[in-house]
Amino acid sequence: MPATSEFYAELIERQKKTSLLGSCSAVLGWDEQVNLPPAGGEHRAGQLALLAGMAHEQATHPRIGELLSELEAADDLGDEGSTAQINVKHARRYYDRDTKLPQQLVEELSRVTTLSQQAWVEARKNSDYSAFEPWLTKALGLKREEAEAIGYGDGQPYDALLDDYEPGATAASIQAAFNPLRDELVPLVAAIRESGRQPDTTIITRSYPVDAQRQLGIEAATAIGFCFNSGRLDIAAHPFCSGFGPGDCRLTTRYDEHHFPGAFFGTLHEAGHGIYEQGLNKDSFGTAMGQTVSLGIHESQSRMWENLVGRSPAFWQHFFPKAQAAFPAALSEVTQEEFHWAVNDVRPSFIRVEADEVTYNLHIMLRFELEQAMLTGDLKPAELPGVWNETFTRYFGITPDDDSNGCLQDIHWSAGLLGYFPTYALGNMYAAQFFDTADEELGGLHDQFARGEFLPLKNWLNEKIHQPGKQFSAGELVEHVTGKPLSHEPLMKHLRTRFGALYGLD
Amino acid sequence: MPATSEFYAELIERQKKTSLLGSCSAVLGWDEQVNLPPAGGEHRAGQLALLAGMAHEQATHPRIGELLSELEAADDLGDEGSTAQINVKHARRYYDRDTKLPQQLVEELSRVTTLSQQAWVEARKNSDYSAFEPWLTKALGLKREEAEAIGYGDGQPYDALLDDYEPGATAASIQAAFNPLRDELVPLVAAIRESGRQPDTTIITRSYPVDAQRQLGIEAATAIGFCFNSGRLDIAAHPFCSGFGPGDCRLTTRYDEHHFPGAFFGTLHEAGHGIYEQGLNKDSFGTAMGQTVSLGIHESQSRMWENLVGRSPAFWQHFFPKAQAAFPAALSEVTQEEFHWAVNDVRPSFIRVEADEVTYNLHIMLRFELEQAMLTGDLKPAELPGVWNETFTRYFGITPDDDSNGCLQDIHWSAGLLGYFPTYALGNMYAAQFFDTADEELGGLHDQFARGEFLPLKNWLNEKIHQPGKQFSAGELVEHVTGKPLSHEPLMKHLRTRFGALYGLD
Repeated sequence: MPATSEFYAELIERQKKTSLLGSCSAVLGWDEQVNLPPAGGEHRAGQLALLAGMAHEQATHPRIGELLSELEAADDLGDEGSTAQINVKHARRYYDRDTKLPQQLVEELSRVTTLSQQAWVEARKNSDYSAFEPWLTKALGLKREEAEAIGYGDGQPYDALLDDYEPGATAASIQAAFNPLRDELVPLVAAIRESGRQPDTTIITRSYPVDAQRQLGIEAATAIGFCFNSGRLDIAAHPFCSGFGPGDCRLTTRYDEHHFPGAFFGTLHEAGHGIYEQGLNKDSFGTAMGQTVSLGIHESQSRMWENLVGRSPAFWQHFFPKAQAAFPAALSEVTQEEFHWAVNDVRPSFIRVEADEVTYNLHIMLRFELEQAMLTGDLKPAELPGVWNETFTRYFGITPDDDSNGCLQDIHWSAGLLGYFPTYALGNMYAAQFFDTADEELGGLHDQFARGEFLPLKNWLNEKIHQPGKQFSAGELVEHVTGKPLSHEPLMKHLRTRFGALYGLD
Repeated sequence: MPATSEFYAELIERQKKTSLLGSCSAVLGWDEQVNLPPAGGEHRAGQLALLAGMAHEQATHPRIGELLSELEAADDLGDEGSTAQINVKHARRYYDRDTKLPQQLVEELSRVTTLSQQAWVEARKNSDYSAFEPWLTKALGLKREEAEAIGYGDGQPYDALLDDYEPGATAASIQAAFNPLRDELVPLVAAIRESGRQPDTTIITRSYPVDAQRQLGIEAATAIGFCFNSGRLDIAAHPFCSGFGPGDCRLTTRYDEHHFPGAFFGTLHEAGHGIYEQGLNKDSFGTAMGQTVSLGIHESQSRMWENLVGRSPAFWQHFFPKAQAAFPAALSEVTQEEFHWAVNDVRPSFIRVEADEVTYNLHIMLRFELEQAMLTGDLKPAELPGVWNETFTRYFGITPDDDSNGCLQDIHWSAGLLGYFPTYALGNMYAAQFFDTADEELGGLHDQFARGEFLPLKNWLNEKIHQPGKQFSAGELVEHVTGKPLSHEPLMKHLRTRFGALYGLD
């Protein structure tokens, strides 16, 4: 009978193989978004389904269950918190989750969400909610089945879905974090709206030639520490970051000649994700210790570089002369202060992905509220557009003009991604709390930014957040790094400071 | 016990799955050449090795052997020549070939050729043959093992290797085709050299802006029938074509601002390969009936569009005004005749991939001769540089100045690709013979080209060469389409006609 170390080695080898196969799918997925010829969609779907099936087969192989039982019964895996303990704990979590889902449900979910996304594209284009409603109903039914198969202890079905994106979080814990945030955000939005001061936003819609946008984006991403020797930046309709593995992380963005912030902050955002991926422990690839913590922690990295760094006055103290040189026609007569305010314009708007830093979190809370109600059945799909618009009006003071600008705007529900939205707002809160601690420990980050020094923060994130992999859960990591549990206060303090100054609030 | 049709359906399903997995590797291989960040090489090698291992496992699954035995014993697969018969015949061929190779040899070949290619890159850069020789020796040893494992009947080990690229061909059959070709090529080369007339080749090394080269290349590839709705054109250091499957075929080329023909004819060449891939029967993907015949037939398609079409006077009657418009600085004072001659310059040169249409085949014959002698052991790796230079001098009348321009110039031997070279010259012969028949059947191709009409030829190739898949072997296809066995005469007739006119030969 082999010693525990041999069982462990076999488990790790199987995990690495499954991750490696997953990374092949990631290459095909990236290529689908960046390069696929129009007629190649069907073949690509077949390729991805094949790889997904093979990966599921590998991940649910009964031998993994045997290995886990042997390892869990053994007493020589080291102390709690040892690499071996952590890898085994997460391997158990993945294995249980994967084996609890009946193959038939996995396939049906894949089939329905593929068709549902196609229906959503059309429905959104035509602002025709009725064409999408039957697909949403189907997807909800399957996601309920998924939640039941996985189980949710004393909690609610939503927790089972959330656990896939933000392990350890529950609907109740997120609600507890969101409530005080909302209570303070709503009056801040009102105060900004009533301040009477407005930036000149025509500055950012002048002509910004795309080549120069790309060059400046690459310069900024490089400055904050994204490594182009181990990565790329390409164009895609829906910007994303995909880390294939050690030495290969791909960012995408999209350019609009007449809207500077979209691509620039989008590039910083994706570079933030990319810096996390590039900061993982390479030798641990494929195991928990070489994986990101959660979607919320991932988003904390992208939002930190996009907003806390990229939209700070100090950042533009360094970068505005470069922007002026890159876009002389648009910016030669503009001051740094005018430009900085224009890229920090706050106003209620319909579309989440275009929202400013202040109103963004309200978009998330709206979705979190409605998707919970749809999952329990309290909110019927037929009632969604009405309830969306009513809640939106309550939060923002404006009412969507049609469903394309309302409940049809996001792809997530059509793709079966229920429980995904709250991780965006969690990311904003994590980011602000991490940033405060970094600022204390590194002493005056904004002075560093003004001098173009971004690597101290990047290296701090590498050490504190990236290298530990899944050693801590998201909640544990926040406490471990900042000494305090997650709180809305750092984010609110940041928003009040930045926007209080811009809009002249008390 | 299931009926034969069920065995057959299972066999086809397994073949399609293996092809689909192979097409995933092809995407990763393409991406490696086109997009891979410098640091991503090791991870990519791991991904490709994993997929190759899984594909080999699928291709050698014992169930395939069982299915083949059942199907071969049955008598209801239809007539000889039926789709089922052909698919089963080729499935047997693949299965036997794959299962004959010991897993250990497959892995050792993969390992050695990966390292050997790295050694070759360095050796070529430094023109240091001694650094490459040990790798060549190792590769030769393994390829001999491969040939013995596969077997070669009454023939010679070379046949077993050749069979992987040009099924049905033997060293003897190729020698028989090459001998008369060489006998007539050598005096033609001499006559051209002695003619005293030379084109002005400075025309084609003027400034040709890369963007305009790309545009004209895409226009030409589109005109000859490559479909960009189902394909792309990108940049890679080593141009190639990769057909992933229905709706997705990728071409690559490389641009040199000061050398027009490289990218332009390279694009036509790869588009020729791509038109073949795009012309395959989509519903037969993954089975013999949806696969290309051989490397030689594949090369016949690329060389036909590159040379027989793309370097013809008629082609430039249509395209020269477009080229003048695209490159006014380089071409406004140049006549169509001067330009056409410049892109048809014939002169002995060291590098195969830069060789003109006439001397090209001599480069191939040299390699065919030497690789056979190395495989038998008659030529020792240590003697290669000397024998290369001596044979080269005999064929071309010039002697390579160093081994980088001699026996180190091609990647093939370092990659274990012995038996591959002759397919290039076979392609030239097939191309000329097919072209003659098309010209007869379609009536005056050159008049059509001069009017910009290339689709009649493309559609004829679709019907005669592409749609039948592997219904015929290469030799059978030539006879079936042209009514005659393969001959060197159509190629020599073409070369004498084209270059006799340009160089004023009798």
